[in-house]
Amino acid sequence: MTLPTPDRAEIVRRLIHPRAIAVIGASADLAKVNGRPLKHLLHKGYKGRILPVNPKYREIAGLPCFPSIAALPDNVDLAVIAVPARDVIASVEALGARGVRAAVIFSSGFGEMGPAGAVLEQSLAERARACGVLLCGPNCLGFINAFEHVYATFSQYADGETGPGPIAFVTQSGAFGTAIAALTRQRGLGLGYFINTGNEVDLGFSELMLAVIEDPRIRVAAGYLEGLEDGAALVRLAQRCQVLGKPLVLTKVGRMAAGARAAASHTGALAVEDAVFDAVIRQYGVLRARNEEQMLDMLEALSQPRVASGSGLGIATQSGGAGVMMADRAEEVGLQVAELAETTRARLAEVIPAFGAAGNPVDVTGQFVARPELLSESMVALLDDPNVHVGIVWLQLMLAHVDTLVNIFSDIHARTTKPFFVCWVAAPEAAVARLRAMGIVVYGAGERAVEAASALVQYHASRRRAAEPTTELSPVYALPNGPFAGGVQPSVLATSWLRAAGIPMAEVALARDADQAVTLWRSAGAPVALKIESPDITHKTEVGGVLLNLDAEAAIRRAFRTLMDDASKAMPQARLDGVLVQTMAQGHLELVIGARRDPVFGMIVMVGLGGVLVEVLKDVAFRRAPFTVPEALRMLGELRMGAMLDGVRGRPPVDRQVLARMLSDLSYWVAAMHASLQELDLNPVLVGIEGPIAVDCVMVLRPYHAGKG
Amino acid sequence: MTLPTPDRAEIVRRLIHPRAIAVIGASADLAKVNGRPLKHLLHKGYKGRILPVNPKYREIAGLPCFPSIAALPDNVDLAVIAVPARDVIASVEALGARGVRAAVIFSSGFGEMGPAGAVLEQSLAERARACGVLLCGPNCLGFINAFEHVYATFSQYADGETGPGPIAFVTQSGAFGTAIAALTRQRGLGLGYFINTGNEVDLGFSELMLAVIEDPRIRVAAGYLEGLEDGAALVRLAQRCQVLGKPLVLTKVGRMAAGARAAASHTGALAVEDAVFDAVIRQYGVLRARNEEQMLDMLEALSQPRVASGSGLGIATQSGGAGVMMADRAEEVGLQVAELAETTRARLAEVIPAFGAAGNPVDVTGQFVARPELLSESMVALLDDPNVHVGIVWLQLMLAHVDTLVNIFSDIHARTTKPFFVCWVAAPEAAVARLRAMGIVVYGAGERAVEAASALVQYHASRRRAAEPTTELSPVYALPNGPFAGGVQPSVLATSWLRAAGIPMAEVALARDADQAVTLWRSAGAPVALKIESPDITHKTEVGGVLLNLDAEAAIRRAFRTLMDDASKAMPQARLDGVLVQTMAQGHLELVIGARRDPVFGMIVMVGLGGVLVEVLKDVAFRRAPFTVPEALRMLGELRMGAMLDGVRGRPPVDRQVLARMLSDLSYWVAAMHASLQELDLNPVLVGIEGPIAVDCVMVLRPYHAGKG
Repeated sequence: MTLPTPDRAEIVRRLIHPRAIAVIGASADLAKVNGRPLKHLLHKGYKGRILPVNPKYREIAGLPCFPSIAALPDNVDLAVIAVPARDVIASVEALGARGVRAAVIFSSGFGEMGPAGAVLEQSLAERARACGVLLCGPNCLGFINAFEHVYATFSQYADGETGPGPIAFVTQSGAFGTAIAALTRQRGLGLGYFINTGNEVDLGFSELMLAVIEDPRIRVAAGYLEGLEDGAALVRLAQRCQVLGKPLVLTKVGRMAAGARAAASHTGALAVEDAVFDAVIRQYGVLRARNEEQMLDMLEALSQPRVASGSGLGIATQSGGAGVMMADRAEEVGLQVAELAETTRARLAEVIPAFGAAGNPVDVTGQFVARPELLSESMVALLDDPNVHVGIVWLQLMLAHVDTLVNIFSDIHARTTKPFFVCWVAAPEAAVARLRAMGIVVYGAGERAVEAASALVQYHASRRRAAEPTTELSPVYALPNGPFAGGVQPSVLATSWLRAAGIPMAEVALARDADQAVTLWRSAGAPVALKIESPDITHKTEVGGVLLNLDAEAAIRRAFRTLMDDASKAMPQARLDGVLVQTMAQGHLELVIGARRDPVFGMIVMVGLGGVLVEVLKDVAFRRAPFTVPEALRMLGELRMGAMLDGVRGRPPVDRQVLARMLSDLSYWVAAMHASLQELDLNPVLVGIEGPIAVDCVMVLRPYHAGKG
Repeated sequence: MTLPTPDRAEIVRRLIHPRAIAVIGASADLAKVNGRPLKHLLHKGYKGRILPVNPKYREIAGLPCFPSIAALPDNVDLAVIAVPARDVIASVEALGARGVRAAVIFSSGFGEMGPAGAVLEQSLAERARACGVLLCGPNCLGFINAFEHVYATFSQYADGETGPGPIAFVTQSGAFGTAIAALTRQRGLGLGYFINTGNEVDLGFSELMLAVIEDPRIRVAAGYLEGLEDGAALVRLAQRCQVLGKPLVLTKVGRMAAGARAAASHTGALAVEDAVFDAVIRQYGVLRARNEEQMLDMLEALSQPRVASGSGLGIATQSGGAGVMMADRAEEVGLQVAELAETTRARLAEVIPAFGAAGNPVDVTGQFVARPELLSESMVALLDDPNVHVGIVWLQLMLAHVDTLVNIFSDIHARTTKPFFVCWVAAPEAAVARLRAMGIVVYGAGERAVEAASALVQYHASRRRAAEPTTELSPVYALPNGPFAGGVQPSVLATSWLRAAGIPMAEVALARDADQAVTLWRSAGAPVALKIESPDITHKTEVGGVLLNLDAEAAIRRAFRTLMDDASKAMPQARLDGVLVQTMAQGHLELVIGARRDPVFGMIVMVGLGGVLVEVLKDVAFRRAPFTVPEALRMLGELRMGAMLDGVRGRPPVDRQVLARMLSDLSYWVAAMHASLQELDLNPVLVGIEGPIAVDCVMVLRPYHAGKG
């Protein structure tokens, strides 16, 4: 029995906001895993009913203890299961029978335990579905809803102060997630929700985050991922966050080959290719934090409400060197160290002593101890500048001047509306706490402040992009009708389909014999290329299957025979349809454009600079299909060798707009064909002054799937 | 009067270890800049004489105050000058007259104050030289010798605990340097020396560091740089550190264009090109820290005495995800996540519960709370593995188990000899302090622990390299004899010089008329290239001055005329010597090799992948000349597109050894010619299966310098 979606959403809502919580296998020792939820629920002020279940006890910590699940009262919205793995399924079945619709399973001994555990986990999933019980876990630390004091967890994090705050944090890892939660607390940033999803046998990362992100008390979503199976759900989450205007920050491990191997062995989850993951989440406005420190830095910047309406950075420091370091980092992370307006420079010149630098970064020098207004006046002047969108003040130590400085920053805060961060190296802890209590963001290292500013700027840029009107293209052309024969499609057919969709494809025709080849060459009236055509040969050049620049009858006839003979020799089993005849295309730049079915995110379009560059430098960019022309332009902007598009060594520049249109058109086509398309490879795409043209096309369809259209 | 070197070194030694210190312009207010040195000298236990000088006072803080410099007693090794800028020169002159040979000048108002200040600074330098007084500063915070309690400083850093330790820290920036010093203290790492060099009118970074690095109590040298004028002094320092076996860690700001601009405006120091700086310091075994956090992380790793004899990393964690993240970072920073020996895997399988991963990273899971031996036994097993050279243990929180964990780490420390780091996220402060007191290195974030491990591994690798026998080549061939005519050298001459030095150069001959060109083509017996030859044309292709693949008399004659005519038209003033005739060279890969005179480091050799790659990707590597073949191999290893050397798309690999030999030979030649050579450009160098050959050579000599020979 699969629950209908609205019902499911409501059950998840009650799981997170339960009226009553049963703890199955509750211990009277409140320090143990199966006692800790009781302790926290009791001591941290949960207002609903707490219902321990254990036949060994009559009461625990003053609460009546139930002998069995069957004995539970009505309206239990959540059960915490803390029994040995072998007893979990029976508990779930009993919960289903009693009408309890959601459970958090602490117990380990499932998928993480190898094949036997995986079998048990599969049974658990099936039985829970059959009984209509939604599961979080197994092998998880559970969750905290800090607003309603719901502590369905045994995480160490719950042992300390867990006052609620504007961040919802969902983590696939218990231990690392607990570490991040503890760091959040150290920063004075409160978690409204802390959820560890464990093995995700049922409820996964995206569905749980989707449930809590709706809470108006939540302003920022943060997630820690190790693997991902349902890319579409993550995209839905990201899109919902965009609609709600709440940033989503993700850390995902397994960026490199070594890490991905370790991740696969650790979680058993499908290892999504990191470059694809990275591209797709950014496409939907998600911020990626490379590690827990960067995540915390981003969360602090994103938890404050001020908006960065551009990428101009203003820096005021007490140390020229620190200013230089921050300016360097700003350039690396895509911020502009803003050129100041003349009026701003004049204002700064009034307040800054002669030996400071009145440009940006502003160096107020050590004189600001004697004249604190130096710092506040210059920061306010910077933030008033139209080219400055976010400010950073850098200082160090100043243990003897804490009150003065706190007042200065409070003054700046009161007099400005743009975001600004204090970067205070080796700061007194009390000062940091006072500033944070006033809503002022504080960092302890200059580069980290700059990176956080960049995250804030990126987030607000993605907000503006999301608000732009998009010209969503629904294809007006006819899509090919299925059902299709699976496998490699005939080049002439594939080319005609793509031409119909507006993709610039070189004309190609099939010659079944040498006479036809000669006729086609004559009608072309120009030099042609001949290429072997076979559904069994996808890499024509590898069998010597391409001959270029033929422009005489004898050469055409010889080429036809050579191609057919060589292909027969190289691949005797290959079915040879004949030889393709194609006018030689012009272009001074070679691209590779492709599409493939990603197991996590579905149809992905790729563009890369061709030839040796794509092989050695792996200079490619990805997007999930479909996407708009502006998104395709950003995609082109990600190519490291993108300068080649703009003309080097006297070559003319490429029209990026036309190329982006081609990528976007292709993305809509592959999205529309997603049910049938397995893989598409346009390689090479030659780009000349007349625009791009694909001169070779390998299209593979999935067998036995009807195309939509 | 320039002091002879031994005398100078002795004066510097006394400056740092003074028997008596005079404070010129001393204040009775010990909180002021000119009172703070007295306070610290008095309260922190300086054993020498403290001699305040100020006509306004008879005594300060119980010390007799001298009315003038002239009234000072003998044997004053150091004067601290804290008077207004306009009075500094008079003080220096008086010190010279009284026989005080060294001064630290706090006063600002010099080079950092624009043109007027620069003039004053120039006078100060000249007067000090004339009086025989060595200067540190001006515009500096002074220095601390914590071993002998010398506090010739007004830095805030001196206000707290400043117990000595094994690190010598020299900084060009006062404010940033103070911040780094404070962070060092926070880590429990002691500074033996803290020196701020300020405007470096006399004593610079390298000379002061050279003086303190000799102290046997110092184990690690750390420096913060904003600019650099004397590259040779920095190289001498780095080489001395290698001899002494003490790591040198440098942070230099101004990595990017924006930062370099800001640095130039800030310090007025010569902005060394960052890529050259980076390459040269690594060449001499210096570690570069990108910011203050990374510097601190490196210092902590390098202050412990254990040696990493390879790059294999062993990781034990409580969280699979943290292991994955660290494995990723290890791969990025050049460490190997070690493949474990069979015996190690067997040992691990004995101690690790079934649901942990017994590979590397080892995931001991949360079970180690119940069984602490899981962590210690697996770390010891890892460190016993021959493929593991450094270990990291990762854990988080565990507030309730501090004693147990401290004991575990102490146990691991006692049972092993290889370096291992504890990475404890959100650790209790007391635990961190206890571990550090035991000499155990502790970090708070996984990636940072990995980066620090990489620094340790790099350092010990550079130690092993430095210990390798080098085959220092003194050129056995005859160097060209000067004096030379400055400017562009004739191609035939330049080619012959380089051929004599063993550099593979394509044969080239000059034809002064078409008949000579034909004769040269005939004697070549193969297709030739013709190129215009003129001392005024360095970029031949830009004037259409190169014609390739000529193999017929008529073509040769036509080409000769075309080249001469086109060059006359393009550059009517150019002196045309004739046309070069050169056999067409073969090669499937194009390199650029060059040498140029860097204003900071002298002769620098560059190699890059040619054509569009060098233009767009700036894929070049630098070394200071001369260097050995192994160093040239490392240089080639730095090319991002270096995979192209090993053959892509079916091309044969290039013999890196031969290429490295060419680079090394060239480096010895340019080093020997450094007095005369301005610039050398071999572009392109074609590389084929028979090795590299330079087919074009532009050599520019400096006018009026005699060559060494």
